[in-house]
Amino acid sequence: MSTASTMKRPKTQDERDLLLYDSRLQRPIRMKTPELERDGRIRHAIFSGQFTVPFLEELAGIADMIRLMSKSRAGQDFLINLLPHKRAMLYFTQPSTRTFLSFMAACQVLGMSCNEVRDPSTSSETKGETRFDSIRMFSSYFDVVIMRSPIARLAESCAYLMNDLDSSGSRSVPIVNAGSGADEHPTQALLDIYTLQRSFQFANPKDSPSSNKLDELRERKGYDGLTKGLAHKTIGFCGDIGRGRTVRSLAMLLALYEDVRLVFVGPDHPTLAMREDMRERLVDRNVRFYEMDSFEDSLDGRPVIEQLDALYMTRIQKEHNNAADTDSLATIDFSKYCLTPELVSRMKEYAPILHPFPRDQHFGEIPPEIDNDPRAMYFRQARNGMWIRAALLAHVFDVDRLISRHFLTEYVERHHYNE
Amino acid sequence: MSTASTMKRPKTQDERDLLLYDSRLQRPIRMKTPELERDGRIRHAIFSGQFTVPFLEELAGIADMIRLMSKSRAGQDFLINLLPHKRAMLYFTQPSTRTFLSFMAACQVLGMSCNEVRDPSTSSETKGETRFDSIRMFSSYFDVVIMRSPIARLAESCAYLMNDLDSSGSRSVPIVNAGSGADEHPTQALLDIYTLQRSFQFANPKDSPSSNKLDELRERKGYDGLTKGLAHKTIGFCGDIGRGRTVRSLAMLLALYEDVRLVFVGPDHPTLAMREDMRERLVDRNVRFYEMDSFEDSLDGRPVIEQLDALYMTRIQKEHNNAADTDSLATIDFSKYCLTPELVSRMKEYAPILHPFPRDQHFGEIPPEIDNDPRAMYFRQARNGMWIRAALLAHVFDVDRLISRHFLTEYVERHHYNE
Amino acid sequence: MSTASTMKRPKTQDERDLLLYDSRLQRPIRMKTPELERDGRIRHAIFSGQFTVPFLEELAGIADMIRLMSKSRAGQDFLINLLPHKRAMLYFTQPSTRTFLSFMAACQVLGMSCNEVRDPSTSSETKGETRFDSIRMFSSYFDVVIMRSPIARLAESCAYLMNDLDSSGSRSVPIVNAGSGADEHPTQALLDIYTLQRSFQFANPKDSPSSNKLDELRERKGYDGLTKGLAHKTIGFCGDIGRGRTVRSLAMLLALYEDVRLVFVGPDHPTLAMREDMRERLVDRNVRFYEMDSFEDSLDGRPVIEQLDALYMTRIQKEHNNAADTDSLATIDFSKYCLTPELVSRMKEYAPILHPFPRDQHFGEIPPEIDNDPRAMYFRQARNGMWIRAALLAHVFDVDRLISRHFLTEYVERHHYNE
Repeated sequence: MSTASTMKRPKTQDERDLLLYDSRLQRPIRMKTPELERDGRIRHAIFSGQFTVPFLEELAGIADMIRLMSKSRAGQDFLINLLPHKRAMLYFTQPSTRTFLSFMAACQVLGMSCNEVRDPSTSSETKGETRFDSIRMFSSYFDVVIMRSPIARLAESCAYLMNDLDSSGSRSVPIVNAGSGADEHPTQALLDIYTLQRSFQFANPKDSPSSNKLDELRERKGYDGLTKGLAHKTIGFCGDIGRGRTVRSLAMLLALYEDVRLVFVGPDHPTLAMREDMRERLVDRNVRFYEMDSFEDSLDGRPVIEQLDALYMTRIQKEHNNAADTDSLATIDFSKYCLTPELVSRMKEYAPILHPFPRDQHFGEIPPEIDNDPRAMYFRQARNGMWIRAALLAHVFDVDRLISRHFLTEYVERHHYNE
Repeated sequence: MSTASTMKRPKTQDERDLLLYDSRLQRPIRMKTPELERDGRIRHAIFSGQFTVPFLEELAGIADMIRLMSKSRAGQDFLINLLPHKRAMLYFTQPSTRTFLSFMAACQVLGMSCNEVRDPSTSSETKGETRFDSIRMFSSYFDVVIMRSPIARLAESCAYLMNDLDSSGSRSVPIVNAGSGADEHPTQALLDIYTLQRSFQFANPKDSPSSNKLDELRERKGYDGLTKGLAHKTIGFCGDIGRGRTVRSLAMLLALYEDVRLVFVGPDHPTLAMREDMRERLVDRNVRFYEMDSFEDSLDGRPVIEQLDALYMTRIQKEHNNAADTDSLATIDFSKYCLTPELVSRMKEYAPILHPFPRDQHFGEIPPEIDNDPRAMYFRQARNGMWIRAALLAHVFDVDRLISRHFLTEYVERHHYNE
Repeated sequence: MSTASTMKRPKTQDERDLLLYDSRLQRPIRMKTPELERDGRIRHAIFSGQFTVPFLEELAGIADMIRLMSKSRAGQDFLINLLPHKRAMLYFTQPSTRTFLSFMAACQVLGMSCNEVRDPSTSSETKGETRFDSIRMFSSYFDVVIMRSPIARLAESCAYLMNDLDSSGSRSVPIVNAGSGADEHPTQALLDIYTLQRSFQFANPKDSPSSNKLDELRERKGYDGLTKGLAHKTIGFCGDIGRGRTVRSLAMLLALYEDVRLVFVGPDHPTLAMREDMRERLVDRNVRFYEMDSFEDSLDGRPVIEQLDALYMTRIQKEHNNAADTDSLATIDFSKYCLTPELVSRMKEYAPILHPFPRDQHFGEIPPEIDNDPRAMYFRQARNGMWIRAALLAHVFDVDRLISRHFLTEYVERHHYNE
């Protein structure tokens, strides 16, 4: 479906509705960000461009606390009593089992009631209802709308609709974007960043292949200059660079950190390679990045696979192939974009391997032999998604401060907690 | 599907089951009402004919209290602790997103667990199970069955089944009718009445275009004799009078109030105009009513649009058109049955506009330009549905008294509450 | 789908995954049982062969306590506070309304949050995800996976996967088998046994046609030697013996009790009669059993219908007929395998009639005229399923001891409880 700005003559109210917000949708992000906040905190989570480094660090801290509290019954009881009076609507007209369940679990961690609309054919839209009327219905019954839609700008438009209702004294609720079109998937970017944040703490053996060994890594293993945190890291991406909205969102967030280098490994093919608009955005931000077509290509004089501090693998999204792709893709040797135990053995000892999942058993970008390698972080990454989404909901509903205070009282002061 | 009474030779157990209750189904409502009660309160909510004016006033009072309590965390905690031990089954074999979600939210307001069966093709009915066996299964696991079915008398029959089980010492649960065939939709009627009750309190600016201004309206605006409450009001209905079960149910409830006049505005077409049985029922009850084909027709010497105290708009239910309708409907000028800002500007200043929703963006019976008019009450009306359904469930489970008592203690006595 | 052991060359990772556990799947049950336990209690409930008589008695005791506590608000509050911090995943890729709802209700009795995946076509499997990756995703977000699958050994394989994850220090959760292929349905067997346990207590008029009358039954009615409990009973099965996995599971559990006799009544037809492997298993266990083709066949010199201590009726599963069956089944007089009031009147006064439900209104194996007979236990049986599943979940999560202790304190000691 085309966005409002490319439409000639809107014929339905749905088209007029999107057009209504067209001028707001066309603004640069920095003009939009304040409108998506309230009292200095994020109210509508629409795109990853809203997130700053301090926010990412704060949210990771909340997620860490939630995770730790969830280990005891007392902590779980505290959490499920935070939002039992709130009702969530998961409005997923674009199918997604994983993101859907992750949000469900995140809501339940905080005690929220969950409701869902997943099949648009059973909804009132078949009776001529506009999308905006549907969203207003949801906002009448529920306290947050978590939405995933094939329409690129719908989540953002709904956030503006809510703000307009708010201005006119009507009821409005927060909107959380759980994936909109090919464009944005901000909470996936949050969980990817959170997984890297945990890994580069070198603190917990489940999160990092080399926990508690930062000194040893530097002194004995020759990783001089290795530091905690995301700054100064070289992060690789492999596979479907062109269509991977998770690649795009994560890369833009990594660009926020100091001295990060990005390496994109994938076939030099118009559908799979980096899009021009993304290249421009990276140049705009002065990010150093490299496009290569093999893990054996050289970076700083050595094969890139040996130089990465982290590797983000992706699935080739063949369900989005167009007719022209079929022939040209058939000539590519995709085996170069599949990990092997041999490749993994040459990676840095501490370098986590991520994947947004699902992985494709037929393509084999990560064969299961690698699952037991301590660098394999992709299952852990899925669970991180639940914690960071719970943290985001806690932020949106302004109960993150209760979590911090409870943590300080019950865990830090009383138990002299050390993880 | 034909009702039991019109069937010649029942062939399946399902048909015999409906036939079993046929003589009870044929009785006049006043003979049925006592059977649907227990200890003087409604146990099974099956048709709007069960509701009396005192009951409607009482229920609106409970809904008002729930609404107010929901504004604070303390009040919400009180509410979600009322029925956390109860499990609801929403058995919706006729699709309805709006009613479904409204009931889900209402259950959650009171802390109930929700369960659903929506697609009959996945149920045990494909294995030869009768509907009554399905209902008994639900009553084995759950504490209330909220049902919506295309079969006209099914909800009522299930209520009798439950009563018979009760008599024989077996487990039985309350049945709530969430829409049965073309016949009844009693909780929609409840929310429509509740919206009018709120509007004609002239108390809250969100519920009434003219809050706190009853004296002013009478003295300065020339609305002499305007009173609080539903009595003495002229209520208009526009659109699909013939097929609108919400029109029928609401009209019959309005007939309970003193000196109410009803005006039906719609095309003079056999499918869309008032059915003869409804005309007879209104005559039986001595209700004054008028059938007109335009808002410009005269009532008391002025165009009717200017004389209405409230206007109930409806959607033309074209999905129920039969083959014969297609040609004859094509000749009608439907634009006369769509509101315009110009028409609204001529309405009484305090007259609320209702719509059972969804509205049809292609038909345009209420264009969005009207949404910001203070008379537009249809979004508010949707949220009223959640409150009044929660009130009904509280009544059925006999916790409404706990709500009244808590309200008296915490809100009236302690805070000297004034809305 | 064929099991791993019969596959020649596995082509997909899914096939390799099942093959991975093939040698473990092939072991005799007594070698598997310890692996499905942890700290002496069942962790994964996969097949009925895991259950011993002491376990069955213990579980029935927990179910009895849960049932009793559920009668009061104080007891319900105790129960829903046992597991509110646990999130269940109901992964039902084989449709089943009844088992699904029964598990949902059981979870809710204990306060658990429920989540579901029922339609595999909307899941990540369409993107090439393996089943094992899906299960690991569920185990990332949820605390127990209750699964029903058309693939015979999948639940067992998933239990081994979880154990392997546990061994390697990764997160793992309990697996509960809610029906796997034509093979096992262990919780159905639990509820069937529980219903018989309740009936043969002769304690509660709702569970037993002859409550509190064991002495009278023995002395005046001539049922000499009748005892409490399942030992020394003659249990009849009627209908689809060959394809009824509930028949198979229940028969094997009954074989655990002393001096039980089993009578199978059904057509002598290759699809419907007992399979050879079951015959061998019964012989192995020294169970006395009889195969008859009519209720009028003689046992101990009288028609078998008059000799049964309990009768388990089943539905002919015609949806599983193969092409060859159509002709041969057409010649069978199935009316002999349908109960009638006359047959019931000749049964022992105390003999409960069970049915796993749904029953088939078109086949008529139990006509509704029998529903009011005190021997009809099949609706009660459905509700028993909820209680025994709640008891199993309480056992798996190790809160059964809290239930026993609460019961002792609040019900036995304080109230001198007598049912």
